[in-house]
Amino acid sequence: MRAVILASHPHGPVSAAHFEVRDVPTLEAQEGQILVRNMFLSLDPGVRVLLGAQEGYIAPILVGDPLVTLAMGEVTESRHLGFQVGDLIVGRGLTAESSVITPDVDPMCWKLDQATMTAPSNSLGIQGAAGMTAYFGLLDVAKPQPGETVLVSGAAGAVGSAAGQIAKIHGCRAVGIAGGPVKAKRLTKEFGFDAAIDYQGLSLAELTAAVKAVCPDGVDVFFDNVGGTQLDAALDCMNWKGRVTTCGMISQYNTQVPPAMHNLFQVVANALRIEGFLVHTYADQFDGAIAALGEWVRDGRLVFREDIVEGLDSFGGGFARLFDGSAQGKMLVKL
Amino acid sequence: MRAVILASHPHGPVSAAHFEVRDVPTLEAQEGQILVRNMFLSLDPGVRVLLGAQEGYIAPILVGDPLVTLAMGEVTESRHLGFQVGDLIVGRGLTAESSVITPDVDPMCWKLDQATMTAPSNSLGIQGAAGMTAYFGLLDVAKPQPGETVLVSGAAGAVGSAAGQIAKIHGCRAVGIAGGPVKAKRLTKEFGFDAAIDYQGLSLAELTAAVKAVCPDGVDVFFDNVGGTQLDAALDCMNWKGRVTTCGMISQYNTQVPPAMHNLFQVVANALRIEGFLVHTYADQFDGAIAALGEWVRDGRLVFREDIVEGLDSFGGGFARLFDGSAQGKMLVKL
Repeated sequence: MRAVILASHPHGPVSAAHFEVRDVPTLEAQEGQILVRNMFLSLDPGVRVLLGAQEGYIAPILVGDPLVTLAMGEVTESRHLGFQVGDLIVGRGLTAESSVITPDVDPMCWKLDQATMTAPSNSLGIQGAAGMTAYFGLLDVAKPQPGETVLVSGAAGAVGSAAGQIAKIHGCRAVGIAGGPVKAKRLTKEFGFDAAIDYQGLSLAELTAAVKAVCPDGVDVFFDNVGGTQLDAALDCMNWKGRVTTCGMISQYNTQVPPAMHNLFQVVANALRIEGFLVHTYADQFDGAIAALGEWVRDGRLVFREDIVEGLDSFGGGFARLFDGSAQGKMLVKL
Repeated sequence: MRAVILASHPHGPVSAAHFEVRDVPTLEAQEGQILVRNMFLSLDPGVRVLLGAQEGYIAPILVGDPLVTLAMGEVTESRHLGFQVGDLIVGRGLTAESSVITPDVDPMCWKLDQATMTAPSNSLGIQGAAGMTAYFGLLDVAKPQPGETVLVSGAAGAVGSAAGQIAKIHGCRAVGIAGGPVKAKRLTKEFGFDAAIDYQGLSLAELTAAVKAVCPDGVDVFFDNVGGTQLDAALDCMNWKGRVTTCGMISQYNTQVPPAMHNLFQVVANALRIEGFLVHTYADQFDGAIAALGEWVRDGRLVFREDIVEGLDSFGGGFARLFDGSAQGKMLVKL
């Protein structure tokens, strides 16, 4: 079968040239496993940390190996009692035509439920890791109260746009930071944010001033996908006992030297809490989150964009677009 | 009366020359206030942020004004029903011979209780803000479990040495970081830490390796008084769901440009929590903390050092010593 493999470790910006499509041996399901025909692959910024020299979530990918990413597909062979041929599932699979998944050891594996699912591709986006990262990161980690101001970075992205809308559903004021005037406008016009900031070209001081201008009562919760200067600016705008949910630091994945942080002292001065999390630790609560997100999608209270590229050959170019600002929504590869 | 006033705003390292002793008008207690003859003044690193251009806990001190710091003294006039002439108290007072305190609006004002007090000077140290910062910052913010590894920065200082010993009392393994071989040795020989690291001359990579060498099971709790490179190194050593209590960033108070932070991504990767706090928010629990700390002091389970300078003229030189590594324990000015 065909698979996307890592052709070389990126040092600095990642590009399509770091990947190749090759034939690899066909897989077989062992006892307790399922064989899945992949229909969609998720393009996730977090995978970047597995490709270079940095250590990240798990052991880095080796040159010549396929990547591991979230996949949505159809079960074509089952040696697991809980799955049948024809079931639609999400699981941590290979960047290839098929994957073998061991459901009992993969917290990110679940079967799509006809009662709560919307479009199948949504299970990798608004009803998948992206939507659930927004859902748990906002509601469980940051715990905003109605009336509080929630600032979101990467706000035009799949996670950030969901976080802002969930904040609004919970009675908060939502302010988003995005790159460029088109995305900034999209925050208020399409995703219902109360205010938007275009960070492009702004220094730390200018970004801080911009946040303070649109958050006259300060920031109670910062939902951060970006890190770096955006985190630094937000720290200077936080209210007493403010909470920062860090669910990614996309600004740093492609760089070797992170920026100086000027405002970490605010953690002491304003008794702030900065807390990271990984969505798979909420696996036992996924059903409820998927149901809630699906209901908001059907009600039209939660809108989203997908940015779908076609075929394994498009994987590398699509992955690089996660970091150059050109992604227009949750990025997926359709097989 | 005589008072220490700010002679000029320090930009960079603070020295005795930034302070002067001058005569200022005598104070009078109004309704609800008490007049206190100061016996000891606390020298606190956190006051540094009030002296320069940075904004900190409260509004910065102006040139020509006395500083505000914690003072221990004797009530000489009372216009508050809860205090009598002769009471010994702690309160937020002036760096002067006397202070006027308004107990009802000062969360850091309390009367010393004969049943729980040890030496009067201890109420500004081990049974004061320093000891209680260790007590609440460790037990309430970080919440270590017995058997966990607690790493402490500034571990030879008043707060850090108490934090390490309280960690031991609670069944944890305690590892301390201090500056210089004398202080590092003091951690294990005098304060009962299980291991000690001398950070002087170590790069980020060397400090990280040193922490990993003496914390083979990783770090569960980092009790941080220092920030900067020591925080950066600790972040790279933290276990899954590790907790960082930030109760000060002494490494940054004297510098204009903080260092780059290389390991903030670990907040995401290991689901870390970094949380700041200020001890005055625990004012309603001070009595219990003072009693517990006093009991451990009397039992000999909690030892401490004081570094006392004499007279208002020694204030500036003593304050500068907080930052040059020469402080040998809780620094106080005795009047």
